[in-house]
Amino acid sequence: MHILILGAAGMVGRKLTARLVAEGQLGGAAITALTLVDVIEPAAPAGFSGPCTRYAADIADPATAPRLVADRPDVIFHLAAIVSGEAEVDFDKGYAVNLDGTRQLLEAIRAAHQAEGYRPRVVFTSSIAVFGAPFPDKIDDEFFCTPRTSYGVQKVVGELLLSDYSRKGFLDGIAIRLPTICIRPGLPNKAASGFFSNILREPLAGKEAVLPVPEDVRHWHASPRAAVGFLIHAATMDLAPLGARRALSMPGLSATVGEQIEALRKVAGDKAVALIRPEPDPAIMAIVEGWPRDFTTARAEALGFRAESSFEEIIRIHIEDELGGQI
Amino acid sequence: MHILILGAAGMVGRKLTARLVAEGQLGGAAITALTLVDVIEPAAPAGFSGPCTRYAADIADPATAPRLVADRPDVIFHLAAIVSGEAEVDFDKGYAVNLDGTRQLLEAIRAAHQAEGYRPRVVFTSSIAVFGAPFPDKIDDEFFCTPRTSYGVQKVVGELLLSDYSRKGFLDGIAIRLPTICIRPGLPNKAASGFFSNILREPLAGKEAVLPVPEDVRHWHASPRAAVGFLIHAATMDLAPLGARRALSMPGLSATVGEQIEALRKVAGDKAVALIRPEPDPAIMAIVEGWPRDFTTARAEALGFRAESSFEEIIRIHIEDELGGQI
Repeated sequence: MHILILGAAGMVGRKLTARLVAEGQLGGAAITALTLVDVIEPAAPAGFSGPCTRYAADIADPATAPRLVADRPDVIFHLAAIVSGEAEVDFDKGYAVNLDGTRQLLEAIRAAHQAEGYRPRVVFTSSIAVFGAPFPDKIDDEFFCTPRTSYGVQKVVGELLLSDYSRKGFLDGIAIRLPTICIRPGLPNKAASGFFSNILREPLAGKEAVLPVPEDVRHWHASPRAAVGFLIHAATMDLAPLGARRALSMPGLSATVGEQIEALRKVAGDKAVALIRPEPDPAIMAIVEGWPRDFTTARAEALGFRAESSFEEIIRIHIEDELGGQI
Repeated sequence: MHILILGAAGMVGRKLTARLVAEGQLGGAAITALTLVDVIEPAAPAGFSGPCTRYAADIADPATAPRLVADRPDVIFHLAAIVSGEAEVDFDKGYAVNLDGTRQLLEAIRAAHQAEGYRPRVVFTSSIAVFGAPFPDKIDDEFFCTPRTSYGVQKVVGELLLSDYSRKGFLDGIAIRLPTICIRPGLPNKAASGFFSNILREPLAGKEAVLPVPEDVRHWHASPRAAVGFLIHAATMDLAPLGARRALSMPGLSATVGEQIEALRKVAGDKAVALIRPEPDPAIMAIVEGWPRDFTTARAEALGFRAESSFEEIIRIHIEDELGGQI
């Protein structure tokens, strides 16, 4: 089985690559070749003995998509995107990469399908940014998509195109809407959502973290490990039960910042919690106001997708996967 | 006020043109210029004294959109589309016209906005084809869009782009999802939905009509006059209350075929009803199975959109508007 990962240099792409290499198989089929692509050349995965092609490419470039499908990967993980903030600032770039890039990929697959019956599994990462406030307390599987960012629009369009190309039989696609990934490893970043991870990751490493919102802010989370699990399940499950509805909100954990902090206290004690410094930021609070807080994800759960059930579990996963099992 | 109608040669486009010319104003502003565009050159409207530019153009051609906005129409009615059946058969043409054509129009407006602050009202006709079965008994304003045709996908994408360009301030747009238009004037056509009109229009004219489905089939209707009313209201209302949610399902009348027939009996008697010949067609029944049957359209109604409340009213409108007031 030949697997292509677009966006392989990102956090989720790297973790997905590492897990695929560690398992050596996907859905019971041995992984015989890997192709890793991103805007920067992805690093070579340690421990993979088969052929691994890696290169830098811009999916907005019309020449990229035909190259991506030229050797007919069996499974394509499409994680590549301009992130929300950048797509909001650079309207043309967001549409070029997130909408046109995705469409060009689907079109290249369709051309190969029509030429020789090629029909890969395509797993597309969408986002809860497809939803826009005002929300019900819990967003269910049939709630409408009214994004309030260009990024969110581009993701819904990707979902719709993927569904249509699947319905037509050109490919076998699924779009999974990831919760906010927590705890993101690495350095604190300037994304408006960064604090959800910062307030746990930094104190676990003995460092201070800034909390810009009140403790009653509620949000929707899943660990990086759960995100990789979603991708692998999406790549291997039978998609027939999805019918024509190929976009799914993934399970997650709804928690307040206060609940995050109490979980940190249980795992790492008062000393860790004391490193969180409240510093209210009205700009971040205004952005966070517009974000989903909770979901019912009955469809995805019935199809076998699983996320964490407590923030302690999310924190312990971070300690296992990032901190060598100890703090 | 300068008004541009894209798709002006179609049934709704012609009726909209006639009504605008008859009223001479839109939202209290005198109509000083009209531009009428379609894939065939629209006919000159009788009785319009101002400048009326008419030409044939393909909105899929990238040269068309800049020409459309070159003289900065204040209001753009975008009714142009490849219909559902054709978009399903000709995948490339459907996407080229319905998706790329719409996007190119929005992009040309954005370019003019960025050059000189141009910001027209754009009224885009969407369709209940944005919804795909299975449905609840009534589709509400927050039900998700999972189209089961490429046409439906292209219409949702148009809605999303229109909403994003509106949110960004490039234009002031609204997408209205029209019910099935009944009674369509003219000759019986081969559209799968044609029978809803045929079984009324033909008997009213003393002719036979074929009914391919059982009488308990329920569907969602509005008259051509109501559709024109929706367009004019959409062009003149304050869009601020819509917020970022610029797509609206229009009001309509949910009725079974049996109820249509009983209304025909009341208006035109048993003799007219006797002209309806049941001839079950499993292919049409299968298509109709996947169509919406009923809606709650509280949002549109609160915003002042109005449709008919009985099929007798729909039939009487046809008699008034198409048959000179008598049968």
